[in-house]
Amino acid sequence: MADLEWASGLPGLYAVIPAGGSGTRLWPLSRTASPKFLHDLTGSGASLLQDTVARLRPLCGERLLVVTGARHADGVAKNLPTLNSDNLIVEPSPKDSLPAIGLAAAVLERRDPDAIVGSFAADHVITDQPAFEGCVTEAVAVAREGVLVTLGITPSYPATGFGYVQLGSAYGPSGHARWVPAFVEKPPLEVAKGYVDAGYLWNAGMFVVQASVLMAMIERWEPELAAGLRAIAADRDTIEDVWPSLPALSIDRAIAEPAAAAGAVAVVPAHFGWDDIGNFASLAAHLPPSRSRAGLRVLGDDDLVLSIDSSGIVAARGGRTVVLLGVPDTVVIDTPDAVLVTTRERAQDVKVIVDALASSGHEDLT
Amino acid sequence: MADLEWASGLPGLYAVIPAGGSGTRLWPLSRTASPKFLHDLTGSGASLLQDTVARLRPLCGERLLVVTGARHADGVAKNLPTLNSDNLIVEPSPKDSLPAIGLAAAVLERRDPDAIVGSFAADHVITDQPAFEGCVTEAVAVAREGVLVTLGITPSYPATGFGYVQLGSAYGPSGHARWVPAFVEKPPLEVAKGYVDAGYLWNAGMFVVQASVLMAMIERWEPELAAGLRAIAADRDTIEDVWPSLPALSIDRAIAEPAAAAGAVAVVPAHFGWDDIGNFASLAAHLPPSRSRAGLRVLGDDDLVLSIDSSGIVAARGGRTVVLLGVPDTVVIDTPDAVLVTTRERAQDVKVIVDALASSGHEDLT
Repeated sequence: MADLEWASGLPGLYAVIPAGGSGTRLWPLSRTASPKFLHDLTGSGASLLQDTVARLRPLCGERLLVVTGARHADGVAKNLPTLNSDNLIVEPSPKDSLPAIGLAAAVLERRDPDAIVGSFAADHVITDQPAFEGCVTEAVAVAREGVLVTLGITPSYPATGFGYVQLGSAYGPSGHARWVPAFVEKPPLEVAKGYVDAGYLWNAGMFVVQASVLMAMIERWEPELAAGLRAIAADRDTIEDVWPSLPALSIDRAIAEPAAAAGAVAVVPAHFGWDDIGNFASLAAHLPPSRSRAGLRVLGDDDLVLSIDSSGIVAARGGRTVVLLGVPDTVVIDTPDAVLVTTRERAQDVKVIVDALASSGHEDLT
Repeated sequence: MADLEWASGLPGLYAVIPAGGSGTRLWPLSRTASPKFLHDLTGSGASLLQDTVARLRPLCGERLLVVTGARHADGVAKNLPTLNSDNLIVEPSPKDSLPAIGLAAAVLERRDPDAIVGSFAADHVITDQPAFEGCVTEAVAVAREGVLVTLGITPSYPATGFGYVQLGSAYGPSGHARWVPAFVEKPPLEVAKGYVDAGYLWNAGMFVVQASVLMAMIERWEPELAAGLRAIAADRDTIEDVWPSLPALSIDRAIAEPAAAAGAVAVVPAHFGWDDIGNFASLAAHLPPSRSRAGLRVLGDDDLVLSIDSSGIVAARGGRTVVLLGVPDTVVIDTPDAVLVTTRERAQDVKVIVDALASSGHEDLT
C-alpha cells in the first residue's frame, strides 16, 4: 500500500525539471560542458539533479520530465539512467525558462488533459523533505483552482539577485496560500531591504500550474510561442525547424508578472530550507565540518586536505593533496586541470574569472 | 687565450660542492627525494646546482667535485651529465658538513699537494658574477697563506637562522681580508641585532682553504675523523666500511670555531648578492615580475596563471591553470601531486607541513 502510494504520488502532478545554466559562480567545479546540476556539491553522493529527482519522486512517481540543452543531454541521460527517453526533452538551443517549461506543458496537455505541472530547478538544495512535500501538496490543490501557484521562500537577507513576490489577501478558506498582487524584478539593495521588511517572499522559480492553464496564459501573452510549442508537442520531429524561431523569454517576466497583474497568481509560503548554491560561500553551509580540522569545510576526500591555522572551504577534486597554512576564510577549489584560490568574501565574484578566461582564449577551461 | 684562461681558472683551486639538505621550507616544490638544489627556483632554466657549477667554472675549470648523499647521486649525475664520476663523491649516509667537505679535502690532498678547496653550497643564489669571482680570487690568495678563509655576507636583517663572523684587524697588507676573532652560533634576535650593529658578517658556509691545511685542522681537533677520511681517500672501496663509524659534525662548530679561537681564520667580505632561498617569500625576490599581472611573481609558465586583485607568488608546476581572486600576499605552489596555499608572512613555517605529513603517514609526499 505504501509502495503503491509512493509510485503514484499526487494524482495528476507531473514534475518538470528545467536543467540549464552552467553555474559560472562555481567555477572550476562547474563548467560550461559540465554544469552545476551534474555535480555532487553537498557531499551527498548524488548530483544536484539526482537529489532533485529523489525529492520529487514521492510526489510525482514516474511522471517526471527533464528539459535540458543539446549539449547536456548525454550528461543528463547518464546521470538519470532510468529516465524514459520520452521524458527527456532536449532543447536545440537555449531559450530561457518559458520555452523550456512551456514545451513540457504543451507535451503534457496532450498527454493528460488534467495534468498539473510542477516546475523545479535542477540545481537547488532543499532541506526538510516533509515540509517540501506538504508545501507542494498544498500548491497542487490551489493550482487545481486554475491559477498559477508559486512557492515563496522567506528571505534570509535582502538579496539583489532574486525576484520578490508581494503577498496579498488569503487565497481560499483554508491553508496558507495568498493572492499575489505583484511579481517584482531583482531589486537594488535599498528596495530589497524594503521588500524584506514588508514581508515579501523570494521567487525561487518553483511554479505549480495546470498544463492547460499555463498554455492558455502563454497563448494570451505570447501567442506565437504557444503556437510553436503546440506544433512541436504535436509532432516532436518539427522541433529543429520550429525551435529557432521561438522567442527567448523568462516565465517570471513573460507570464508570472502579467498573470499577477491579472489576478491569476497565488503563492504558498515555503517552510523548508532552500538554497540555489549561488557561490562557494553558500556551498559551505551544505558541507559537513571537516572531521579533522575545525573551521574548515571539505568537499571531497577529507584525507586529501591538511589545514594549519586556516579556515574556509576546500574542494579536493583533483586527487591531489591540498595544504593550507595560515590562511583564514579561504576558498581553494582543486580540480584536475585548474585550481582556484579566493576568499569567502570574494566567492560571489567568481564569474569574472570565467569571463576573463573566455576573453583570453581559454574557452577550454570555462 | 681567453678560452685557455677559462679552462684553467685560478691555479690549484678545486671547487667542492656539498649537495645535501632537502629544503623542507620549499615544500611541495622540493621533496626529500627531489631536493632544492635539483630545481630551477629562479626561472633561469637551470637547477640551482647547475647554476652553482656554471658560477664556479670560470674559477676552477674542470677541477670541481660534488659531494652528495646516496639517494641523490642519480639526480646529481643526471643534472650534471658531464661531471666525471671520479669527481662525484657519494656519502653512504648523511653526516653533516665536515665529513663531506673533509672527504673532498682528503681526496684532493692526495691528488694535488697544493690543492686549495673552495666549498660552496649547491643551493644558494649569487648575483654579480664579477664581484663573486673577485672575492673568491682574493680568498684563494689569502688561503695560500695557510689559514681558513670564509666569505662573509653583509647582513640585510638580524637573521637568527645564520651564524655570524666577528671582524678583527686587517689581514695582510692589501685587499679587504680581516682576521676573525670568533665564529658565533645562530643567535637569539636581540643578540643578532647587536651583531648587525657591531658590523658582524653572516657566515654563509663558503670556505676557501688549502686541502692540507684543512686536513691538519681536522687532525688536530677531530683526529679519528681525519684518519677515517684519509683511509677512504687512499682506497675509495673502504667507504662503506669506514663511513658509518665517522662522527656527524658541522665544519662551523668542529673546525671554524676552534680555528678562529686559534687565530687561523680570515674573512673576505663579500660584495655580491647572496641568498640561500630559505623560503617562498625570499624566492620571490629572484623571480621576474609577472608579464601580465602587477604584484605577482610567477615561477613556471606565466600563461597558466590568472590573477585578479591578488599579489604574491605562484609556482605553476602542475601543468594546471592557477587562478587567484582577491587574495593579496598569497603563496600558491602547484605541483602534480600537491598544492600549497599560504601567505608570504607564513612562508617561513612551511617546514611544519612536512613534519605534519610525515607524522600522519604521508611520507610519500615529503
